[in-house]
This record gives sequence, C-alpha cells and structure tokens, in this order.
Amino acid sequence: MAFAFEVLTLFPGMITSYVSESVLGKAQERGLIEVRATDIRDFAQGRHRVTDDTPYGGGAGMVMKVEPLVAAIEAAKGRSPSARVLLMSPRGRVFDQAAARELSRLEGGLVLACGRYEGVDERVVAFVDGELSVGDFVLTGGELAALCVLDAVARLVPGVLGNVASPGAESFEEGLLEYPQYTRPAAFRGMEVPAVLQSGDHARIARWRRWHSLRVTAERRPELLARRELSETDRVLIATDEEPDGAAAKKGNG
Amino acid sequence: MAFAFEVLTLFPGMITSYVSESVLGKAQERGLIEVRATDIRDFAQGRHRVTDDTPYGGGAGMVMKVEPLVAAIEAAKGRSPSARVLLMSPRGRVFDQAAARELSRLEGGLVLACGRYEGVDERVVAFVDGELSVGDFVLTGGELAALCVLDAVARLVPGVLGNVASPGAESFEEGLLEYPQYTRPAAFRGMEVPAVLQSGDHARIARWRRWHSLRVTAERRPELLARRELSETDRVLIATDEEPDGAAAKKGNG
Repeated sequence: MAFAFEVLTLFPGMITSYVSESVLGKAQERGLIEVRATDIRDFAQGRHRVTDDTPYGGGAGMVMKVEPLVAAIEAAKGRSPSARVLLMSPRGRVFDQAAARELSRLEGGLVLACGRYEGVDERVVAFVDGELSVGDFVLTGGELAALCVLDAVARLVPGVLGNVASPGAESFEEGLLEYPQYTRPAAFRGMEVPAVLQSGDHARIARWRRWHSLRVTAERRPELLARRELSETDRVLIATDEEPDGAAAKKGNG
Repeated sequence: MAFAFEVLTLFPGMITSYVSESVLGKAQERGLIEVRATDIRDFAQGRHRVTDDTPYGGGAGMVMKVEPLVAAIEAAKGRSPSARVLLMSPRGRVFDQAAARELSRLEGGLVLACGRYEGVDERVVAFVDGELSVGDFVLTGGELAALCVLDAVARLVPGVLGNVASPGAESFEEGLLEYPQYTRPAAFRGMEVPAVLQSGDHARIARWRRWHSLRVTAERRPELLARRELSETDRVLIATDEEPDGAAAKKGNG
C-alpha cells in the first residue's frame, strides 16, 4: 500500500511541483507514495476567503487564522482517520533522521499542516498530534519544512530509492557524518582518489571509511558523538592519529 | 541593487517553481532579489551527459561526479566573482538564523551548489567557500536545503517582507522560541484568547510574551537558553511560576 502524504497549504503548487520531479515523481508513478496538496484557502469563509489577520496584543506581521486551518485538518482526518497530523513550526520538535525513520513506519500516513512560519493561531495546536521544526531558522511559510520532511521520509519508504541497501549507509543513520566519497576520474586537476579506495581490500576500505566518519564527526559535530556510545573498536580507531593505511595510500598515489 | 542567488542543480524546475510564488515571487518582480537556477547537466560531457557514477571502494548508491559540478561552479563564479559559494551537504555547518542574517548581508550574492545529498565527490569541496547543512536528516538532493537557505536569507533582505519591523520580532532572532500568537475570533470552540492580549496594556503584554517565550524555550529547547546570557529581568521573569497576569487573564475571560 502506498504511503500517503497530505500537505495543507496556502500554496499547493509549491508542493505538487516539487514532488512531480525526480525520485518522488517516480515513487508516485510506481504507486509507492501518494501526495495530496490541499488548499487551506478552500476552507476559509466569506467572499475574500481571508486566512490571516493581525495579532491580538499588537506587533508586526500577520497571524494565520484558526478556523480555516482547523477545517482543513478535520477534512484531512476525515480522509485518513489514522494519519499522524503535524504542524510545521519553528517551535516544534527538531526533525532529524531518527524522526524520519519513525515517521516512515507510520501505517496511517502523514498530514503536514503549513502556516505562515512566523505565526499561527496557538489554538490550532489542540487539533494536531505534534509540532515539527526543520531547524533554527525562519522561513516565509511551512511549505519547505513540510517538503523536507516529506522527502526525507519518502526516501525511506521501501522501494522508493530502488536500491534497498542504500538508505542505511549514509549520514546520520548511525548518528555519524558520512566518510568522503569519490568517483571517477581517479585524478582531477592533481587531486587523486585515495589509493586505499582503489585497493579492492574491503577490510581496509571499511576501516578507512569508519576512521573518516568518526573523525569528521568529532571535528565538525562533537555533540553528535557525545550522544552515542562508541564501541571499543571505534574508540581505538578514533584515537589513531594517522589515517589508517595512509602510508599505503601515499605509495599507491606516488 | 538586487540580492543575487544562483542555485546549481540537476533539477532547475524545483527551484524556479518554488521561487515564482508568494513572497519570493513578489520580491523578484520588485527587483529586490534575483534567482538563477543553473542546470549542472549542461556542464556534463559526452552524449549522455552523465553526472554521477559508482563510488570508489564500493558501496550502494551513486556519487555525483566532480567535473560537471566544478564546471558549473566556475561558470557561476565567472558571472559573480565575489559571490559566496556554498555546497549543500549533510556534513556542512548547520544553518540557523544567525547564519541567515550573516548571509543576507553579503554584497556579492550567494551561489548554492546542490548535489545528491548522499554523496558528492569530495574533491568538489576545494572549489567552494564552505559546506552548509539544514539539519541532521538526509534528503534525496540538495535542492530543498538550498531553497530553505534561499528563503530564510531572502526574507531578511530589506523590503522583501514589506514590513521593516517584521523580521526582528520572531523565533530565533534573539535565540528564543516565539511566544504564542492569537488572532480573531476571540473565542473558538471554547478556547479563548488570553485576556491580557486584549487589555491594550502594552507593558503587561510585553511581559506576558517574554515570559512565554522564555518558558517555551526552557521547556522545549533548553540548549538554546544555555547558549545565551539572560538579563537580570529575564532571570527574575523565568523564575516566576505563574503566567504574569494569569489571574487577570482568568478574570477577563470568565
């Protein structure tokens, strides 16, 4: 059964145009995912179908009104009664790869509600299962945040990437950043692919990659390493000062 | 002069369709920002214009080739010699509102290079000014990451939001999450707007908002609070157990 996404938005075209291309477009053609973009404005009342208004208490900027968004959420729940409904919000739980994995296992699908990213009437929160943020920055609307979540979750749905082994071998799947990757040509403007990667020695390659993955994480994102237990092998490896097989790599390249 | 963005991508349609709508569409019409989406495939060689290949050392997934991406970067640098060139990558510096502010002050513009998010030939890094990540999750490509950066930066370009006061008053501008927002109606399915926000007393409103902003940050994202110095007033306020003017709010609502 296809994984069902529904995005509630004032700009459905932003959603449908992105998901029609590339990996997600193919995943829809193959029936692996379904994406519906619902226009919140269809649920607004009155001739002008107003969806935002000035904030109580004053201040700059507009606030998204509670009624149209709640009506859109209730319509989505009517279609998918067991879907998880999340409001995209900079105040939400920070989305990460662990959250993507968790959401990709939902059987009832996912409804992502997008408001103005600067302000949605707080009472909407009573009608959703949670609030989700993609990071500590402010967007013009929740649409890009919803698309990030949709994309990261959809690529974990079995079959979407084509290659079953692929999603496991990359950044964050183990709480580490990825090791450096290389493809042809072997030399580009004097920069050569490390010899170890051309050696065909799978144990050495695995050790080289693990060392780089641990090291780049320690250098750039020490807080990610601090969050996990390192194995004894990893502890020994990360303490190694030189790249494993660095000397061999130099010989091979020279 | 317009702020110039250039996005290097295999899917220029994903960029142009998003930026044609809403706030960013209007900002382009008004000459406040310029967005160019350059197709990396135009810089690939051979009849098949191949842009990715299998990784050296084996493993699942494909790696984006170095030559087409570097050629696209060099073409962009030719057009905008003083632009900041950033590669979207899950291994990059984590983008946040402080980074958005910093980038919005660039006079030479911004070039955002998008690869497969799982792997780009490491040698590309020698041709960019930095690597930027939007969060600890894996996307199918760098396009959504680039759009998040573009959107968050563009809305800080003077004039883009229309209201000059608006960008300062929201989440993360001070390292805090935003206080709850409300707009009409005053009552929705039994849920009422806090009376203090309807009081017209600006000092009380400011105190209520500050208390909520500090409290929601402390509850949901204590690490954000830990990173900043609280003023004496904030330290006293956050230690207050009840919402300031909570009693008045109850009276007002009752």
